[in-house]
Amino acid sequence: MGSGFTARHLTVVGLGLMGGSLALALRGTAEMITGVDPHEETLGYALKHGIIDHATTDLKRGVEEADVVILAAPVRAIINMVSGRIGSYLRSNTLLIDIGSTKVDICTQMGHLPIGIQAIGGHPMTGKESSGIESSDAGLYRGRPFVLCPTRRTTPATRLRALSLIEALGAVPFEMEAQRHDQAVGAISHLPYLLSAALVLTVNYEGETDDAVWELAAGGFRDMSRLAAQDLNMMKDILTTNTQAVATQLAHFRMQLAMLEALLISKDEKKLAALLHSAREARLTWMRRREGK
Amino acid sequence: MGSGFTARHLTVVGLGLMGGSLALALRGTAEMITGVDPHEETLGYALKHGIIDHATTDLKRGVEEADVVILAAPVRAIINMVSGRIGSYLRSNTLLIDIGSTKVDICTQMGHLPIGIQAIGGHPMTGKESSGIESSDAGLYRGRPFVLCPTRRTTPATRLRALSLIEALGAVPFEMEAQRHDQAVGAISHLPYLLSAALVLTVNYEGETDDAVWELAAGGFRDMSRLAAQDLNMMKDILTTNTQAVATQLAHFRMQLAMLEALLISKDEKKLAALLHSAREARLTWMRRREGK
Repeated sequence: MGSGFTARHLTVVGLGLMGGSLALALRGTAEMITGVDPHEETLGYALKHGIIDHATTDLKRGVEEADVVILAAPVRAIINMVSGRIGSYLRSNTLLIDIGSTKVDICTQMGHLPIGIQAIGGHPMTGKESSGIESSDAGLYRGRPFVLCPTRRTTPATRLRALSLIEALGAVPFEMEAQRHDQAVGAISHLPYLLSAALVLTVNYEGETDDAVWELAAGGFRDMSRLAAQDLNMMKDILTTNTQAVATQLAHFRMQLAMLEALLISKDEKKLAALLHSAREARLTWMRRREGK
Repeated sequence: MGSGFTARHLTVVGLGLMGGSLALALRGTAEMITGVDPHEETLGYALKHGIIDHATTDLKRGVEEADVVILAAPVRAIINMVSGRIGSYLRSNTLLIDIGSTKVDICTQMGHLPIGIQAIGGHPMTGKESSGIESSDAGLYRGRPFVLCPTRRTTPATRLRALSLIEALGAVPFEMEAQRHDQAVGAISHLPYLLSAALVLTVNYEGETDDAVWELAAGGFRDMSRLAAQDLNMMKDILTTNTQAVATQLAHFRMQLAMLEALLISKDEKKLAALLHSAREARLTWMRRREGK
């Protein structure tokens, strides 16, 4: 039995790793898949490998016949599309869902689309080290959380169609307000990115005096610096569309770090150990919960 | 051809992952290996698996006949041994090397040992997710940096013997003053640990309001929180014997993070992108350098 998700004409806008993987995963549920991307080579690759049936660089032509449209572009490109002309291109009752990493700005803009468009915000919590259409993977979404955020254009039917799409991907739906989503990913995703970047800058600063830091850096630094190498354009979009939540999480982080430092410098080893212990326990509890699924 | 390292009687004090792996790696270079550990079960395991030839819980008996002694205990245990009676147990000309993660305090104490003991500080930059004698691995040190820090009891002969021991392990020696070592590992190892712990505490704080953070946390958080789960006793020893350098690196880190935050909040996207770009480049350069070896 399938999830009940079907599309007559599915259009995926943006054929990177995420968009390409969506097209692959939904292959059997859509009669026809159109891919929209600004890069001809990307479209050519997707056509050649049977990821899509039709290709165009023109947004209007790509979406005007679709009954399901997924926006899989970077956050600001999504905002520009939704606040631009896409509303006038889409047919009534088209399901419009995006997979941008921040949700408040996108969902707000979706609320201004013409009545009749079934718009809902989405954010799948998945990814890969490699990017681009060549890395597409039909299993990328399987078992992973997929957040859904309602907009002023989300009807009960919109919600059910989006849930069945998530089921077809094999993902696990989490429904929440956009504000709550952005606050949560500020803590678990955007704050870690800034910490990783600031750590690398700190080591780089030390490296100006003593190159040995780069020679001696090992596995701990490797893990902690990985996020600093993420795609810059993607991260810039994310940070600038979630500045308030990120600033809040930075304030909370500073508080926790200051506490650890104060206990270390004042040599209050008992309280320092207790705080480090609670961090250790929280991490181990999360890992067990994660593995238990 | 070997490295030229030989021992008539090698004693390894502390049979955890690091000590057990040392014994395994040096098996062919020593006529006899004695293991000293406070835990009978650990000694039993090491004997049964041929990692050592003799076992004792008594430090004096373990080291008094040795010509090479490696201290592979936690930092404070090493300091206690070196500042305690070990000097009176050791024979003259014994090579004494430790593998503690901070070096200033240990090397200072080594400087007070009786003249004639050939003492030098060491710190191999290696490890594993798993710990304990059961995880011992003869290849653990191969290709990894092994720092050597001179003490007041380091003679030219001490240095050469330690270098040949490192060669026998297949590790790569880096000679530097203890102070410089502690400053460098403060940046690449101890600071990252504190950041990881403070990040987990921040997410935990958010989790008190919204459990969704734990549901949605993915690969980025997994990597950034791994260090927070490290062995607490080991980390407490490290932090409390390297407080000055850690405080310095924390101050530098705060400066870098504040810079990123100021550019984000003031919406100076160009400078923000430039700074994030330099972090990304530094990380990628380090990875290339690491892989090029």
